[in-house]
Amino acid sequence: MKSDDLPRGIDRRALVSNLVLLPALSTTLLSSPAQAQTAPTVPLASWNDGPAKQAIIDFVHATTDQGSPKFVPAEDRIATFDQDGTLWVEHPIYSQVMYCLDRVPDVVAAKPELKNVEPFKTVMSGDREAIAKLSLPALEKILVATLTGMPVETFEANVEKWLATAKHPRWKRPYTDLTFQPMQEVLQYLRDNGFKTYIVTGGGQDFVRVYSKRVYGIPPEQVVGTMGGTKFGYDKDGKPFLTKEPKLLLNDDKAGKPEGIHLMIGRRPHAAFGNSDGDREMLEYTGAGDGARLKMLVLHDDGQREYAYGPAQDLPASKVGTFTPELYGEAKKRAWTVISMKNDWKRIFAFD
Amino acid sequence: MKSDDLPRGIDRRALVSNLVLLPALSTTLLSSPAQAQTAPTVPLASWNDGPAKQAIIDFVHATTDQGSPKFVPAEDRIATFDQDGTLWVEHPIYSQVMYCLDRVPDVVAAKPELKNVEPFKTVMSGDREAIAKLSLPALEKILVATLTGMPVETFEANVEKWLATAKHPRWKRPYTDLTFQPMQEVLQYLRDNGFKTYIVTGGGQDFVRVYSKRVYGIPPEQVVGTMGGTKFGYDKDGKPFLTKEPKLLLNDDKAGKPEGIHLMIGRRPHAAFGNSDGDREMLEYTGAGDGARLKMLVLHDDGQREYAYGPAQDLPASKVGTFTPELYGEAKKRAWTVISMKNDWKRIFAFD
Repeated sequence: MKSDDLPRGIDRRALVSNLVLLPALSTTLLSSPAQAQTAPTVPLASWNDGPAKQAIIDFVHATTDQGSPKFVPAEDRIATFDQDGTLWVEHPIYSQVMYCLDRVPDVVAAKPELKNVEPFKTVMSGDREAIAKLSLPALEKILVATLTGMPVETFEANVEKWLATAKHPRWKRPYTDLTFQPMQEVLQYLRDNGFKTYIVTGGGQDFVRVYSKRVYGIPPEQVVGTMGGTKFGYDKDGKPFLTKEPKLLLNDDKAGKPEGIHLMIGRRPHAAFGNSDGDREMLEYTGAGDGARLKMLVLHDDGQREYAYGPAQDLPASKVGTFTPELYGEAKKRAWTVISMKNDWKRIFAFD
Repeated sequence: MKSDDLPRGIDRRALVSNLVLLPALSTTLLSSPAQAQTAPTVPLASWNDGPAKQAIIDFVHATTDQGSPKFVPAEDRIATFDQDGTLWVEHPIYSQVMYCLDRVPDVVAAKPELKNVEPFKTVMSGDREAIAKLSLPALEKILVATLTGMPVETFEANVEKWLATAKHPRWKRPYTDLTFQPMQEVLQYLRDNGFKTYIVTGGGQDFVRVYSKRVYGIPPEQVVGTMGGTKFGYDKDGKPFLTKEPKLLLNDDKAGKPEGIHLMIGRRPHAAFGNSDGDREMLEYTGAGDGARLKMLVLHDDGQREYAYGPAQDLPASKVGTFTPELYGEAKKRAWTVISMKNDWKRIFAFD
C-alpha cells in the first residue's frame, strides 16, 4: 500500500539512518506557538548585497514595472517555494517524520494490541538505534498509522497540539520558530508586489496546511504537497465528515512538483525556490516559460549558524535534502541563482 | 481504464439518449468570445425581492458585519458554486461533452486509421440517432481521445478555439454567453464582500479553467473539477512539458465534491450553490459547519426563458442535472434555500 502524506523528497534510507541522531522522541516542555513573522519595513533586510539579493530585486522590477517588456499582470504572478530546507530547517530530519514518531504512543494507547507488533514495538522501546534501523516498509506503516484513518479535524488538532510542544533538538525551540528569516522576507516582498505565494512541498499537504497561514502567511489553499485521498461519510448522528484515507493521489516531489502545480494552480510559476534534487523539475518547468522567470536554490553551506551539506559537503551526501553535484552543475549551466546561506544571509532566524 | 475529465454528475445513459436532440455537431459560424460580465452597481439587480434574494443578503450581513455573532474573518470566506445548471445552461447536454464530440474530426484527421474504428466511425457519420445510441464505454473512448494524450497547452488552445466558434443550438450563441446573470451577480456580490469564489464542478477541471477567469472572474486555481493526472517529460530539445494523462485522480461529483474541496481548498465553505443530486454532499458538508452557512439550489422551473426539469417535471426526470424528489425533500427538511428561476430571477441572461 502507498502511504498518504509520506514526504517523498526523502532518501528514506538516509532518513532512517539519521534517526539515531535524534533526542528522546517526545518533547514535553510547554512552549507558546510560533508567531507569524511581521514584514520588515526595508525589503530583504536580512540579505547581504550581492547577486542573489539583486536577482530577486531585478526580477520584481522586471515583472511589476508597467513599462517593462517583461511585465506580468498581477493575476499571473505566481511564486512557488519548497518548504523543507528552503523555508525552514530540515535537519536532522523532516519535522513531519518527527511528528509521526511522536504520535506512536497515542496510536498504541488507542490500540493496545499494537504494543507488541512491529514496528510500533520498536518505536515504543525508545531505542533510538533500533528505530534508526527500521526498514522503509516499517516506516511507511508508522506514517500510515499516524497520518490516516482519522477525521481531518482530528488530524489537524493532533498536529496543532504537537507543534505547541515539540522542540528541535539543537535549538530547543518549536519547529515553527526555525523558518529562515531571509526567506520570510522574500515571501513578504513578493506578496507586497502582487505575487501569490505557494508552498510546493514533498511533505504532506494536510500537515503543512495546519500552520502555513500562521507561520508563513500562506493560506491552506496555497499549499501544494503530497496529497492523500479523503473519504466522505456520515457519523451516527448523520453529520457528514471526511476521513483521511491511506490512498496516495500525488507524490509532490521531483516530477510530481510541476504535476502538483498544474493540478492545484493550473499555470506555470514565474518564480520558484528550492534546495534539493526534489525541486529540480519545478525549477526547470518554471524556467521553460517566457519572459522573466526567477529560479533560486538555497545552498546549506553554513555549518556554524545552521548546517552544511550537499555540495558544501561538511555532512555526507546521503543526508536529507540532497543538493547533488549534478543539480549544482545544472544550476550553473542554466544560470539558476544559488543562494549561499553563509554569504547571502545576514541572519538565519528571526531570533538570531 | 478511467477517463480523465469525464463529467461524472451525468446520468450518462440519459445523456447519450439526449444526443439525438442535438443539431449538427460542428458549429462553424464565427463569433467573438464572450466577455466577462461587469458588476452591476446595485447588488443582485437581476433578482426579484423574495426569500432567495433575502437569504443571500442576510448571509452576507451576518458574516461580514464586525458586530455580528456569526462574523467570519475575510480569510475564511469561501463560497463554492457548481457550474452546469447552476452558473450556466446544461441543456440539452453538458458543453464539455459537446466539445468532445466536436473534436472527433480533428482526432480522426490526425489518426486516419480511426476513421473506420468505432465509436469514431459513428461520430464521423454525423448520424445523430446512431451517436445517441453510443454505449457508455464508447462515449468514454471519445472523452479519453479528446481530453488526454496531448500537452496541456495544446488542450487549452483547442478549447479556446472551440469556445470561439461553437454555438448553443437554441440560442445560437457561444456557450460562454449562457451564464445566468443573477448568479454572476451573486459571485460579484460575494467577492465585493471579501469572499473567495470557487467553481466546484463535475466537469473537467482543466476544461473549465480555460474560460473561468474571462467568463466568471474566477482564476484557474479556484476551479475544482474532475481531475486527471498529468505526466512531466521533456521534448526533443530538452524543454519540459506536461502531458494530459488518461488517469483519474478525483471524480468531483457527489461525495467527490467535499473531497475535492478538501483537496483543493483545505477548509469548509461558508456558502455553497448547486442544482442537482451531484451537489447534495457539498451542501451537506457546508451545512455541517458552525455559524452562518448558506446552502442554495437552483430549480429549473422556467421552460419559457430556459428549461423546466427535475421537480418542475416539464422534462422527464431522466434528463441531465437531476434534481430528484429526494433532493427536494432534503432541501425542505434542512431548510436549504431553493431558487426558483421563474420567480426569483428578473432575467436569465445578460443579453435578455
